[in-house]
Amino acid sequence: MLLLSGGLDSTTLLALATSEDYAVHALSFRYGQRHATEIAAARKIAAAYGVVQHVVTDIDLRAFGGSALTSSIEVPKDRPVDQAHDIPVTYVPARNTIFLSFALAWAEVLGASDIFIGVNALDYSGYPDCRPEFIAAFEQMARLATRVGVESEGSDSQVRIRTPLIEMSKRQIIETGVRLGVDYGMTTSCYDPGPDGAGCGHCDACQLRLRGFAEAGLTDPAAYAIEASA
Amino acid sequence: MLLLSGGLDSTTLLALATSEDYAVHALSFRYGQRHATEIAAARKIAAAYGVVQHVVTDIDLRAFGGSALTSSIEVPKDRPVDQAHDIPVTYVPARNTIFLSFALAWAEVLGASDIFIGVNALDYSGYPDCRPEFIAAFEQMARLATRVGVESEGSDSQVRIRTPLIEMSKRQIIETGVRLGVDYGMTTSCYDPGPDGAGCGHCDACQLRLRGFAEAGLTDPAAYAIEASA
Repeated sequence: MLLLSGGLDSTTLLALATSEDYAVHALSFRYGQRHATEIAAARKIAAAYGVVQHVVTDIDLRAFGGSALTSSIEVPKDRPVDQAHDIPVTYVPARNTIFLSFALAWAEVLGASDIFIGVNALDYSGYPDCRPEFIAAFEQMARLATRVGVESEGSDSQVRIRTPLIEMSKRQIIETGVRLGVDYGMTTSCYDPGPDGAGCGHCDACQLRLRGFAEAGLTDPAAYAIEASA
Repeated sequence: MLLLSGGLDSTTLLALATSEDYAVHALSFRYGQRHATEIAAARKIAAAYGVVQHVVTDIDLRAFGGSALTSSIEVPKDRPVDQAHDIPVTYVPARNTIFLSFALAWAEVLGASDIFIGVNALDYSGYPDCRPEFIAAFEQMARLATRVGVESEGSDSQVRIRTPLIEMSKRQIIETGVRLGVDYGMTTSCYDPGPDGAGCGHCDACQLRLRGFAEAGLTDPAAYAIEASA
């Protein structure tokens, strides 16, 4: 089970899982995000990596409001991304909890024990549900929540939330992906892309991504609406 | 925040929360269940108790399959419900994890710290996500997952998963509800109701419910398709 957003991180994650010979089932969400071009990217990427199955499921996080990614609150631009410990308006309440819960449901049906998620606690936007302590608590809960969890507790096949990117810098993620042959031109990261899917170059996600490529001494092959600087 | 299914347990839970002067926001799910008459019951009950807001949200658990409640697997009838520790086919993978995750998202937006869920670990069907150890693990995870959780950790207003029914027998739940004036004729529990919403009288849920009323010395006011015996 792998959560695939169509972004840089989850695509690197997919390349990693594939390189370790996992038979990947990929899950993506249409959750009312303003950057729905993600879904088109996710479909292309899932096909390119030959996943066993790719499910795109609809959930309506707009019913609750509260985030710039799903409502009319404006996406902040040119925010200093190093002030990482406040929680910005682009935070979607409990998003990773919800995503992982669906992944857990599917893992339960498949009998899968490994759930991959591309969270990152280093070059990130200060979301509480990207931190290692959250992931550890979710894993603990998952082992008590499900049939596969209860029946495999303590065994080698117990439920594991796999986060190989969690301690990597954006630069390290990009270098890992490049080594595995990832075409980052297929991926999209922007929180507020243009109608053609081009990145704005100024939201947190674009800033972190562009800085990662710059630090790796590489040029980001993704399209940007305007000339963007790292 | 209160998860309202339209069944006996969650309606008793709503009566309890209302009696304690909580301003209740109720959340129900259309998740592809074959007993969608639940939703109509939930709407009527939410209105009767004057909740602040009632959101019914769609999620598609059928995409993953794996349960008699959401697929073409037959609902078992006249199963001995006291053999509680196997997990039956009516178990919906990770359902309570998903429901609580959405409740957590909404609680986060509202700034609410109490999430009520009518799980019951005594007269239940052997589902892993109804056990106290699951609830405790979810609560622990929830405190790490969210802004409200992170900011209130250790304070009186930290996130709490409230399960006042968890140690009650079905009889005790019914007696509690009757004391609070619940009209159980509004509620529906059957896993496989007829087109008119009448209970089958023979699935686990009907059996447990009918036995609870019999033990309380009461007649179940809900409609049954056939003459049902406890």
